[in-house]
Amino acid sequence: MAKEIERKFLVLGTSWRRLANAGVSIRQGYLIASDERSLRVRAYGDGRACLTLKIGHTAMARDEYEFDIDPAIAEEMLSQSIGTVITKVRYEVVQQEFTWEIDVYGGRHSGLVVAEVELESEADLPAIPAWIGREVTGDERYSNQALALSEGACQFADEPHDQTG
Amino acid sequence: MAKEIERKFLVLGTSWRRLANAGVSIRQGYLIASDERSLRVRAYGDGRACLTLKIGHTAMARDEYEFDIDPAIAEEMLSQSIGTVITKVRYEVVQQEFTWEIDVYGGRHSGLVVAEVELESEADLPAIPAWIGREVTGDERYSNQALALSEGACQFADEPHDQTG
Repeated sequence: MAKEIERKFLVLGTSWRRLANAGVSIRQGYLIASDERSLRVRAYGDGRACLTLKIGHTAMARDEYEFDIDPAIAEEMLSQSIGTVITKVRYEVVQQEFTWEIDVYGGRHSGLVVAEVELESEADLPAIPAWIGREVTGDERYSNQALALSEGACQFADEPHDQTG
Repeated sequence: MAKEIERKFLVLGTSWRRLANAGVSIRQGYLIASDERSLRVRAYGDGRACLTLKIGHTAMARDEYEFDIDPAIAEEMLSQSIGTVITKVRYEVVQQEFTWEIDVYGGRHSGLVVAEVELESEADLPAIPAWIGREVTGDERYSNQALALSEGACQFADEPHDQTG
């Protein structure tokens, strides 16, 4: 079991792109979800696939169990996921000792760009790059689970979005 | 993904025991559960462990995804399961072309003995051995999920039980 401690932010503009790696496409769906627990299946554009159980504790910290699985099994599971299959491209930007994961959503959440930074402890204070906007840690509307299970199109039209993703 | 089609019965008396194999102990818990879906972790007495996602369709038929996992991870998961960890010993009795799995429950469901027979199709009609009692296929009270998540002790005091397990 891994501990996942992370903070999540909206992303401003496109200046992060010149710092980012090539990115990898991700399709992911939820197989079961409750308020604090979820089972997610994820298929990466590079052929990998994984199954992840998350058990929530606080807004920032979760226990996470992750297993690599056969990509063909992942496809079957995606077809049986509840809600929508989320599509996004994940980029990484390394700033000092912290790695920012920047998810550029596609499909019906197109326009949404979110950055997550993984921490060693809840007390870590990473320097916040200029292209980082409002913090949404613990805001359930921005959880992938909510994005997969919510009805209708992107609810975040009032937010500053990267429209180039 | 495997299709799981099975019927479930209560077991009468102990005459099945002379037909059974040596049995294997099982401890299992649920990590997430909804009405039709569950994620179960199981640790076998012989050291194996597995994670199983079941997606229900009818009383008899479910889709099942099963993954072998590290026994140490299974122990961690058991400690995070919702409800009670179920303990039971599973025996097998082969009768003609059908294999009956007989679960002798321990812990707070001690006294409950249930037999399941796995079928190729919902139309299969296995011969019913003399030690098979009332059919409980689709009776949610006898699902392992209900047995793990229900409050209190065994609810089946009116049933004929094998008290020798």
